[in-house]
Amino acid sequence: MTGTLTIAGLGPGDDAMVTPEVTAALAAATDIVGYGPYVARVAPREGLTLHPSDNRVELQRASAALRLASDGRHVVVVSSGDPGVFAMASAVFEALEEKSQWQALSIRVLPGVTAMLAAAARAGAPLGHDFCAINLSDNLKPWTVIEKRLRLAAEADFAIAMYNPRSASRPEGFARALQILNEAGCGERLAIFARAVSTPEERIETVSLRDARPEMADMRTLVIVGNSSTRRVGRFVYAPRQVR
Amino acid sequence: MTGTLTIAGLGPGDDAMVTPEVTAALAAATDIVGYGPYVARVAPREGLTLHPSDNRVELQRASAALRLASDGRHVVVVSSGDPGVFAMASAVFEALEEKSQWQALSIRVLPGVTAMLAAAARAGAPLGHDFCAINLSDNLKPWTVIEKRLRLAAEADFAIAMYNPRSASRPEGFARALQILNEAGCGERLAIFARAVSTPEERIETVSLRDARPEMADMRTLVIVGNSSTRRVGRFVYAPRQVR
Repeated sequence: MTGTLTIAGLGPGDDAMVTPEVTAALAAATDIVGYGPYVARVAPREGLTLHPSDNRVELQRASAALRLASDGRHVVVVSSGDPGVFAMASAVFEALEEKSQWQALSIRVLPGVTAMLAAAARAGAPLGHDFCAINLSDNLKPWTVIEKRLRLAAEADFAIAMYNPRSASRPEGFARALQILNEAGCGERLAIFARAVSTPEERIETVSLRDARPEMADMRTLVIVGNSSTRRVGRFVYAPRQVR
Repeated sequence: MTGTLTIAGLGPGDDAMVTPEVTAALAAATDIVGYGPYVARVAPREGLTLHPSDNRVELQRASAALRLASDGRHVVVVSSGDPGVFAMASAVFEALEEKSQWQALSIRVLPGVTAMLAAAARAGAPLGHDFCAINLSDNLKPWTVIEKRLRLAAEADFAIAMYNPRSASRPEGFARALQILNEAGCGERLAIFARAVSTPEERIETVSLRDARPEMADMRTLVIVGNSSTRRVGRFVYAPRQVR
């Protein structure tokens, strides 16, 4: 098998945040596989086949990509942000478990600027101290796990980056998350709502958690709740390096 | 004041992981400020002054950069990885609190590929599910805080990325961290030791946490402890997307 599979992160949206190694991988590809809006970020050219697919078919998409690579194609699976953070890399490795002969393929993962880093940079430095990242989508885990992790993250005084805060299928999850964090004593912490960072629709809004409303987030929003020391300086929000 | 201050992330080491917007900022700079080894990654050219400084002088370095910018210079403060993750961005905002006239400066943060994303990509996808990042350096926080966060992170079943695992000044901290995680029942979890990712000295090693030894890490190592479901497939290590 001489095909290759590359799992690449396109960053948050602006091509100025796509790493040169990802750009090179896209230029060398014969096939691009991914969720439609991400595949649409790759310019069509002769010799390149685009394979856009719907959301929520990650495992089928991963298997299709591996099949193409085992047919000798040079396949790039694209994710927004970083492919290893709540994105396609885990799905590809899951698919890899199903067919051991695929494990002989040349596979590599190319990191990218994940949404929380882009959002944090726009806001200032809210991830400058210890933090965690939690995917609020309950497609793949029960809500009880999400709830437990939010409570422990609050107790640990981590800054908390929340991915996929509001799914279309379960919009009430994010309201519950805000309630849990308020109950855990985080009401005075700063909450940053960063929408569509680095795109023309970018919007950054910072409020006290107690004033945060569920409808401030949608599926293109990344929410960062600061730790108990996170504060404003001028137009920025940052986590001091020191805690006592 | 027409000077500018840009806080930029150079990624883990390989120029192929430096984003185009960071490359453009470096090309437009009159002054580069940072820790010596990071400043050394920027090629000298006419009209560019390099200001390398020692480790552990972050606040003085940040003030010096702000002073240069307020003198009308175009200053780039460089960090490895992402400047907002245990790096220079927080120090700049701290310095900004000291002199309110600096707050009128044009300041921006350009994200980068932080060490844990580069390490995770090389290993597979160990950050494919909820995770946290903890700086093990106790220069700026007491060890009791680190210990509490490690215990809560284990209880939350987060994958745990540990930055600065072994400082020269306090090498015993990492041994204690491993002991805490073992006591918390994480002995069977996979631990990835990723050293100098994307440089010629890169080395990736994966063992069970119970077999991890403190001397497997140094200051150029990023350690990722998987969650309880993290497993191997072929030569890769990944976190399945689903938990029950």
